[in-house]
Amino acid sequence: MELLLPPALRNLRQALEKLPGIGPRSALRIIQSLLKKPEHIHSLLSALEEVVQSVHTCPNCGFWTESEGFCDVCTDPHRDHTTLCIVKDAADVLAIERSQAFRGKYHVLGGVIDPLSGVGEKDLRLEQLWERLKKESYEELIFALGTSPEAETTTYYIARHLIDWHGRLSRFASGIPVGSELEYIDPLTLSRSLRERQPLTL
Amino acid sequence: MELLLPPALRNLRQALEKLPGIGPRSALRIIQSLLKKPEHIHSLLSALEEVVQSVHTCPNCGFWTESEGFCDVCTDPHRDHTTLCIVKDAADVLAIERSQAFRGKYHVLGGVIDPLSGVGEKDLRLEQLWERLKKESYEELIFALGTSPEAETTTYYIARHLIDWHGRLSRFASGIPVGSELEYIDPLTLSRSLRERQPLTL
Repeated sequence: MELLLPPALRNLRQALEKLPGIGPRSALRIIQSLLKKPEHIHSLLSALEEVVQSVHTCPNCGFWTESEGFCDVCTDPHRDHTTLCIVKDAADVLAIERSQAFRGKYHVLGGVIDPLSGVGEKDLRLEQLWERLKKESYEELIFALGTSPEAETTTYYIARHLIDWHGRLSRFASGIPVGSELEYIDPLTLSRSLRERQPLTL
Repeated sequence: MELLLPPALRNLRQALEKLPGIGPRSALRIIQSLLKKPEHIHSLLSALEEVVQSVHTCPNCGFWTESEGFCDVCTDPHRDHTTLCIVKDAADVLAIERSQAFRGKYHVLGGVIDPLSGVGEKDLRLEQLWERLKKESYEELIFALGTSPEAETTTYYIARHLIDWHGRLSRFASGIPVGSELEYIDPLTLSRSLRERQPLTL
């Protein structure tokens, strides 16, 4: 169809379409804006090159870092050494940090068990988790993997594996998001919010 | 806020946010997907480098090309040499080509006159247009700049400038899109569709 598009732009379009949330039309809009402002191509190029050169995942927790060894969270002496929060992706760490509600450590699994997408327990950073639980002195493990069936499976998989572990296991409450109207909440969330209702404190 | 995000990723996020349709959240999703699949970073990097090296705009029509001189449309001897379609952006050329309804030549203006955004007639490829109309032998000039007030202004600006030109001036019909329900069409489009109604041929 798009015979007129020069091959280099067709390649760029394909590379852009592999990114989440970008389809053929938005890829073309991005290409157009890049060609109109060449300084944007160059800033994107140098930013990508910098990332390739300097960013890697922390061998301990799996979060992003530019340091040689462990990341800023793992090496921060002021963080709570007794709670470990298990998340799916590095972006989840940023989301929880934004809430400023958690001051413990993190462990990024890198996914959840999802046989249909070919993700098994071997693909997750589980060995590193068992190691950390042996070496570090956590008292509580907080699961924040989300509420999808795959996340639940993964949460229970890890919990079963830790049946003999000395600490407490907990997970983020699931319920009605703050600011939402009850009538727009799905039945599953509603029934779970009711089942896990909290005592009202005055 | 995002103190934990390594500087290189913050730069990449800023570079991505400058692209159309990408906000802070989608930039972060893209960064996450790129870091999970390093081969995507590399294909994006090499595609961008290839574009920087080989793609430029045709000095004649303003469309994208990898050729040294004029682009494939300008040099194609099989295209209709008598009609010239004036579009705003290179992507509009692709859209019209997709319809397979036009076999003439194109002229990409690179924008429309929009004083509020600081785009004046000097910023458009107008000198090149006057040159082409002198050198090449067009019989009809078809405006396809869109229906925004700025596009209309630009269309009339060019038309007034060509008051002594020998050829015909026309523009793409504006009206109800194919497949749309009448009740969802805005009043301006409806009134224009009525004013510019077409004889029914059986």
